[in-house]
Amino acid sequence: MNRRYFMQRVAAGAGLASAMPWLSASRQVLYTRPEPRGAGGLDRRTLRLNANENPLGLPPSARQAILDGLVEANRYPFGPRTELTEEIARMHGVTPENIVLGNGSTEVLQMAVQALGGASARVLVAEPTFEDVPQYAAALPGLHVEKVPLRPDWAHDVARLRELSRGRRVPVLVYICNPNNPTATLTPSGEIDAWVAEAPEHVYFLVDEAYFHYVQDPSYWTALRHIQERPNVVVTRTFSKIYGMAGMRLGYAVARHETAERMRAFASDNNANHLVLVAARACLHDTGFMKESLELNNRARQVLYQCLDDLGLEYLPSHANFAMYRINGDLLEFIERMRERDVLVGRPFPPMLGYNRISIGLPEEMERFAQHLREFRRAGWV
Amino acid sequence: MNRRYFMQRVAAGAGLASAMPWLSASRQVLYTRPEPRGAGGLDRRTLRLNANENPLGLPPSARQAILDGLVEANRYPFGPRTELTEEIARMHGVTPENIVLGNGSTEVLQMAVQALGGASARVLVAEPTFEDVPQYAAALPGLHVEKVPLRPDWAHDVARLRELSRGRRVPVLVYICNPNNPTATLTPSGEIDAWVAEAPEHVYFLVDEAYFHYVQDPSYWTALRHIQERPNVVVTRTFSKIYGMAGMRLGYAVARHETAERMRAFASDNNANHLVLVAARACLHDTGFMKESLELNNRARQVLYQCLDDLGLEYLPSHANFAMYRINGDLLEFIERMRERDVLVGRPFPPMLGYNRISIGLPEEMERFAQHLREFRRAGWV
Repeated sequence: MNRRYFMQRVAAGAGLASAMPWLSASRQVLYTRPEPRGAGGLDRRTLRLNANENPLGLPPSARQAILDGLVEANRYPFGPRTELTEEIARMHGVTPENIVLGNGSTEVLQMAVQALGGASARVLVAEPTFEDVPQYAAALPGLHVEKVPLRPDWAHDVARLRELSRGRRVPVLVYICNPNNPTATLTPSGEIDAWVAEAPEHVYFLVDEAYFHYVQDPSYWTALRHIQERPNVVVTRTFSKIYGMAGMRLGYAVARHETAERMRAFASDNNANHLVLVAARACLHDTGFMKESLELNNRARQVLYQCLDDLGLEYLPSHANFAMYRINGDLLEFIERMRERDVLVGRPFPPMLGYNRISIGLPEEMERFAQHLREFRRAGWV
Repeated sequence: MNRRYFMQRVAAGAGLASAMPWLSASRQVLYTRPEPRGAGGLDRRTLRLNANENPLGLPPSARQAILDGLVEANRYPFGPRTELTEEIARMHGVTPENIVLGNGSTEVLQMAVQALGGASARVLVAEPTFEDVPQYAAALPGLHVEKVPLRPDWAHDVARLRELSRGRRVPVLVYICNPNNPTATLTPSGEIDAWVAEAPEHVYFLVDEAYFHYVQDPSYWTALRHIQERPNVVVTRTFSKIYGMAGMRLGYAVARHETAERMRAFASDNNANHLVLVAARACLHDTGFMKESLELNNRARQVLYQCLDDLGLEYLPSHANFAMYRINGDLLEFIERMRERDVLVGRPFPPMLGYNRISIGLPEEMERFAQHLREFRRAGWV
């Protein structure tokens, strides 16, 4: 099926299911309801490649749990919260005391900044990286954010970060987004391990593993191994990426119990909604959905790479569901031109203003994107 | 229909709809799916009178919006967030800049404490009142919480609070929960207005109107009238009470733009989930649902009052969907005995340990509760 046929079917109101025959039957259930036109100010033809979401939608297992949970959604979700926390703890081989739920992993990042930073701390972050940690720190006058450029290999500059963390008595909060957003690149886990092993306890490691499930590189593993021994390591995970529930808002931190307890003091009360709690529990072990998401992501990434290779546009090796590539022109102009074609692409991430971050959608979606990119080349824009 | 018949029907799996013939047809749609047994560790017979929830469940308008919204719930809800914010602003005759969304109104209370309190502030609260504000303040070492007992008429002691707010250069944050939780009593709005009119700008008024829609007393009105003129007044509202969406998590603050902006710096990113945003927009003007909720609450409250009158148990005049009444015995023992009968009642609210807070459920539910209370009297327990 070519792109034109796909778009015709969708434009004719056929719904994504019939336009995506490669989806399994169970997955098609997800798309039987046509996407509402105009939801969020976007129409169904808009390609959303700007927010690193899972294009497959909610896992069917999660969707069923939401339907079943509607009748209880007028109640504060005390029970489902406990049950999910226990299930996540079991999955990671820890206890519920080690788990801190948040309204997306961004809220647990906020808790970490507020709880571990204290009245006066240094916050060390890469440049560029996910903006939420420096943003939360900016609201607290006692925190000082220092940005450390990524290395030429696009990893965190661990040596430089280590150097900056030394010789200070105030708490140091090191944010390591791995894979890093917006570059989709890795920092070798061995380097992090070595630093953690020798770091004093006032140096906190906040390791953001939002895109953990997409990585297939042997130099990468989770930082969870440090949780039991070290109170200064916090690992965050999310249901927004491979689990397909960005709009449902749930993430969590794993940390030693006393660290988790300090963070929880900054949680907002009842910070997870009933429907996401039951949905997350239903899809936590949905390996079928995760496998399908990963496979589609790998296929769609190849479509993207092929186009970039054809056009000779440099790109960073992607270990997640998005990628950074050179655009050879003005970034804001590029974003605007894509928007005019109903394609939403990533925002600017200074100082990498010669690059655009593109989320990896479905293979067909990447073909449509590639077609626009080739058109841009013909126009001399990239 | 008597209580026994009701319980028999429910126990026989008939579902709440057929056991509640007084519900309108549209409302019955809500209950066509049987309540899951064991959800949240509770079975369907458990009477949940412990968390001031709307027993009617989600408004059908909200439920429909959730079903329609499922297909977009894998996406960050940027559009729906903007649309709901605009609609709420329109409803209150303000602009979107005046609205701060939160994960329940509790998150906006947290933002207010963190943003307006600063490094060193006094936080004045009633005793007893809703615990979240003092709880959030406790996490910040620079804040000092002072508790001021309610007056004999169960209103906030405005005169005493005013006195305590004077002669200080540090910010003062006054939390006024009106109607007050857990007493369901009012503080006359005229008294608040008079204080606001003369208070300096470093005295912040955080007026929590979670139960606003239940009040039918002429001495009460919203504090929203102050928002445009005064940067030191913040009013909070929620979708957890009359809107029936406690488990969906959404609340908001209305404040002057510069105050709202300061609060927003402490919001967690994307703090409202897609489904509650579309649901809230769908039921924001659902006056039919709100009217039905209010009428059922008034009827159910009469069932409660009748029982308390019969038993000669003193109660506070309720202006919300819950009430405080004397229990003549040990509160924890009382709570445990009710739990043994599958009835969840309110937690202890020191120093009112001679009272129990009871949420007002459906009329039939209050009849069941009343039957237990009469049984307790026969046993000499109340």
